[in-house]
Amino acid sequence: MTRGELTDTLSTKIRLALRGEGDNGTTVRVCGVEIGGERIIVAAGPCSVETRDQTLRAAREVKEAGASMLRGGAFKPRTSPYSFQGLGEEGLKILAEARSITGLPIVTEVLSPEDVELVGRYADMLQIGARNMQNYPLLKRVGKTRTPILLKRGFSSTIEEWLSSAEYILKEGNRSVVLCERGIRTFETSTRFTLDLSAIPILKEVTPLPVMVDPSHGTGRRELVHPMSRAAIAAGADGLLVEVHPEPEKALSDGSQSLDPESFRSLIKGLRPIAQALGRYL
Amino acid sequence: MTRGELTDTLSTKIRLALRGEGDNGTTVRVCGVEIGGERIIVAAGPCSVETRDQTLRAAREVKEAGASMLRGGAFKPRTSPYSFQGLGEEGLKILAEARSITGLPIVTEVLSPEDVELVGRYADMLQIGARNMQNYPLLKRVGKTRTPILLKRGFSSTIEEWLSSAEYILKEGNRSVVLCERGIRTFETSTRFTLDLSAIPILKEVTPLPVMVDPSHGTGRRELVHPMSRAAIAAGADGLLVEVHPEPEKALSDGSQSLDPESFRSLIKGLRPIAQALGRYL
Amino acid sequence: MTRGELTDTLSTKIRLALRGEGDNGTTVRVCGVEIGGERIIVAAGPCSVETRDQTLRAAREVKEAGASMLRGGAFKPRTSPYSFQGLGEEGLKILAEARSITGLPIVTEVLSPEDVELVGRYADMLQIGARNMQNYPLLKRVGKTRTPILLKRGFSSTIEEWLSSAEYILKEGNRSVVLCERGIRTFETSTRFTLDLSAIPILKEVTPLPVMVDPSHGTGRRELVHPMSRAAIAAGADGLLVEVHPEPEKALSDGSQSLDPESFRSLIKGLRPIAQALGRYL
Amino acid sequence: MTRGELTDTLSTKIRLALRGEGDNGTTVRVCGVEIGGERIIVAAGPCSVETRDQTLRAAREVKEAGASMLRGGAFKPRTSPYSFQGLGEEGLKILAEARSITGLPIVTEVLSPEDVELVGRYADMLQIGARNMQNYPLLKRVGKTRTPILLKRGFSSTIEEWLSSAEYILKEGNRSVVLCERGIRTFETSTRFTLDLSAIPILKEVTPLPVMVDPSHGTGRRELVHPMSRAAIAAGADGLLVEVHPEPEKALSDGSQSLDPESFRSLIKGLRPIAQALGRYL
Repeated sequence: MTRGELTDTLSTKIRLALRGEGDNGTTVRVCGVEIGGERIIVAAGPCSVETRDQTLRAAREVKEAGASMLRGGAFKPRTSPYSFQGLGEEGLKILAEARSITGLPIVTEVLSPEDVELVGRYADMLQIGARNMQNYPLLKRVGKTRTPILLKRGFSSTIEEWLSSAEYILKEGNRSVVLCERGIRTFETSTRFTLDLSAIPILKEVTPLPVMVDPSHGTGRRELVHPMSRAAIAAGADGLLVEVHPEPEKALSDGSQSLDPESFRSLIKGLRPIAQALGRYL
Repeated sequence: MTRGELTDTLSTKIRLALRGEGDNGTTVRVCGVEIGGERIIVAAGPCSVETRDQTLRAAREVKEAGASMLRGGAFKPRTSPYSFQGLGEEGLKILAEARSITGLPIVTEVLSPEDVELVGRYADMLQIGARNMQNYPLLKRVGKTRTPILLKRGFSSTIEEWLSSAEYILKEGNRSVVLCERGIRTFETSTRFTLDLSAIPILKEVTPLPVMVDPSHGTGRRELVHPMSRAAIAAGADGLLVEVHPEPEKALSDGSQSLDPESFRSLIKGLRPIAQALGRYL
Repeated sequence: MTRGELTDTLSTKIRLALRGEGDNGTTVRVCGVEIGGERIIVAAGPCSVETRDQTLRAAREVKEAGASMLRGGAFKPRTSPYSFQGLGEEGLKILAEARSITGLPIVTEVLSPEDVELVGRYADMLQIGARNMQNYPLLKRVGKTRTPILLKRGFSSTIEEWLSSAEYILKEGNRSVVLCERGIRTFETSTRFTLDLSAIPILKEVTPLPVMVDPSHGTGRRELVHPMSRAAIAAGADGLLVEVHPEPEKALSDGSQSLDPESFRSLIKGLRPIAQALGRYL
Repeated sequence: MTRGELTDTLSTKIRLALRGEGDNGTTVRVCGVEIGGERIIVAAGPCSVETRDQTLRAAREVKEAGASMLRGGAFKPRTSPYSFQGLGEEGLKILAEARSITGLPIVTEVLSPEDVELVGRYADMLQIGARNMQNYPLLKRVGKTRTPILLKRGFSSTIEEWLSSAEYILKEGNRSVVLCERGIRTFETSTRFTLDLSAIPILKEVTPLPVMVDPSHGTGRRELVHPMSRAAIAAGADGLLVEVHPEPEKALSDGSQSLDPESFRSLIKGLRPIAQALGRYL
């Protein structure tokens, strides 16, 4: 498919999420942080908010290393009902405290339309997770807020379906949508998912929305976070979402893909020359 | 993987949805209709409730042909926000009228935790669609009701993830769960999805829950509904979910996979000898 | 895609493998055995020819139970170079002896253009395995023979690519081609492959070539061979390819998916009423 | 899976293709060109050798822009038997002439064991294409030569299967094997394949063999070749295989993914700062 063909196909179904001829990309502001500009931004932090101490430590470490935002889950969509389900509002309060200490804006997931108001009181950016990418009542609800949205790709969703989901949010009036590639499901078993980096330049062609990449979920293995972060930026991503835990081996969820603070500092250091090579900075 | 290995793997994560040694299968009752017994049941009707006339006609036709239940969507999860989104409560009222005329119990989809109470007032069985298979707030909410649940497989969900989602419902106290295979996403493009019939005997090994199959969504092409319905029953399915529309070419959704009433009658006729060959009836 | 659309798409690339308006299906004769007629045929035997004793025992058992052909591999395409690679010509001689004792025609795999002449001296039907479906020099070579060909589907090949491979054989002059579905690669891990039974009715629409199914490789688990064989026949398959080993637990390859002779007899018995329900016999 | 787990799993099946504790990577020499060292190498040229003029023009252009090797197919594995199948030996002679003019070593595909001797007379490096990754007679035959091998990943092969195929070559005595990622088959339709860049760092962990990437076949769209080439290098690839045609719109195969010479020059220019950022050069 050529660029023109792809845009033609999409334009019969998608309007606001499509880039017009000659349009620049949109930037999305989360508090003072601009996503989609020259600066590449990194949102980092633990998969789950587990304790006050763990979250504040993580927040200080990622701030110091150069992160622009703090990520962390208070409502967790876990495959098994017997897994840790998150601290709920208590977790949101811990995140808010971490923000007041570090100044980092917070991105955190919301799972249900009923919780949008509650989570929106604490979060600076609402995350729609991969499992909820086609949860249309949730998309409509967050579309009615003015909080910026981080819309993760469903793990078996095509780019067309992903943009259609963005359209649900945009159509309700919320124009601050950032897309986040986080790996698709394939037959390969040596990674948890297959990170589809070719989605980045395709999205850059067809949509004005900024694009981030989650190399932690996208691979499921911390050894791959450094090279795939470099690759994501080289492919044109506007930012990264990285899991960092003060003690990954004790994490209640996704420990095997979390970086420790030292590894995160070295990640940021290694990304700067790549950003520069592309005429951007970090 | 042998049966034993599969059960061992699952039992670390799933409890109530697993079949114990020597257990019989569970049967689920929807009004007078028993799912999971010797009788193979067919739930049929339009993809969407579009008008009173269309729905009542469809209901009468499928009843006459031998269907045991009426299916039809009032809340529709559509990929594009510009597609017909369903009639909402008005559609539920039409379904209720169709039930009162034909006596067929109704199965219809619920998309959001907030709508569970409303939809539950009209429906005899609540459908959780493929896109919501991992919508955990929704699973928990329907788990708190006493209405039987039809849990469709996510189109890229493993059998293990599917059973984990069933476990969310069972854990809340609702023990009336029926699983429905509806096709998985693969590289093949001549069908909309690839119907995974091997899921049926695997489920029969590891879980006591009844299993239905949706050959309409599972293939996306009406020409395939007859042979794949026969195959599903031959593989051990307890029932089918079939789209029937009085005038498929005028359908507002999924017309290309809907049978017309005559084709549905011939479907039922063709399935009876297969059921008999397996010692069951329909 | 409707039938018409599918045929239109294919006809720009495929000619001889396409069914014309009103054409009947082709039948392929392997010695006295007709594939594609009213009778459903079963080719059975061990994955690999391991010893004379094992092969002759398997041949007698499958003959007695009702098989029409003997299958067995002398040249084995194994993922690891350290796995048993087959007995080569010695294996072919054992197969020929089994044929002379039982009268069953032999289907066996050929891996290389250079071996076509050798294997063709012993085999009644040449099998092209899944890994070689797009080995065009091999397809061209077998296309120059007059030996019937069993063309397995590549495990990640679309139906269109499969028919294009059949076209390579047909174009060289060999019109005796039987297609064999053997499972496609998907994300699901509880089976080795996902048996794509919807391929059967699609093929029946678009090509006159007979269609067989291999439920042993297609699932990788012997517990699934019975239900998936029933389903394959109910979906319209013209025959089955089933792995049977006198002592599956001692097999040098694919033991976990092989039936023992008793289970094979019970398989055949269970398939007869399904065949009858469809107006066929076995 | 952690690094240790992955290596443990592989080591039961693969020996020579596995990296030992503390081993350095292997480098492979193709005439004077070293693959796997600090220098990132680019092999470029047309998909098919079509005419003497087209090939010599392409060779001069890619040489001038900075390519280290010339790629071009004389034996083409085409899905349809009615597509252009390559010029055969005449094409090999044109490639040899291009080499004598430009000094660029030649990499070209061999499809059949019988052609290994012929193609080996002209080629400096033999390519095993994706469709032949599990063509074991071919792997064994090229393993008996001393010509370096470029082993492309099968489009639905796991990394484990890919390394097992490399093992077939290494086991026969040929230790000059370079792996080439070229995209895997997934459900996504906006690209021809999904380029799996996470394979690069995984291979770097477990095998000493050099790794190249083919962004042309891996995406099927020329607009994606620049960003995905940058990403491949940032992820750690040792080289690229890029399709360049003097007039892409007239190409007999794969025109939509071929760069024109100007775009190729700009590609090389854009890759140099990325290579430098990683402490390598190009």
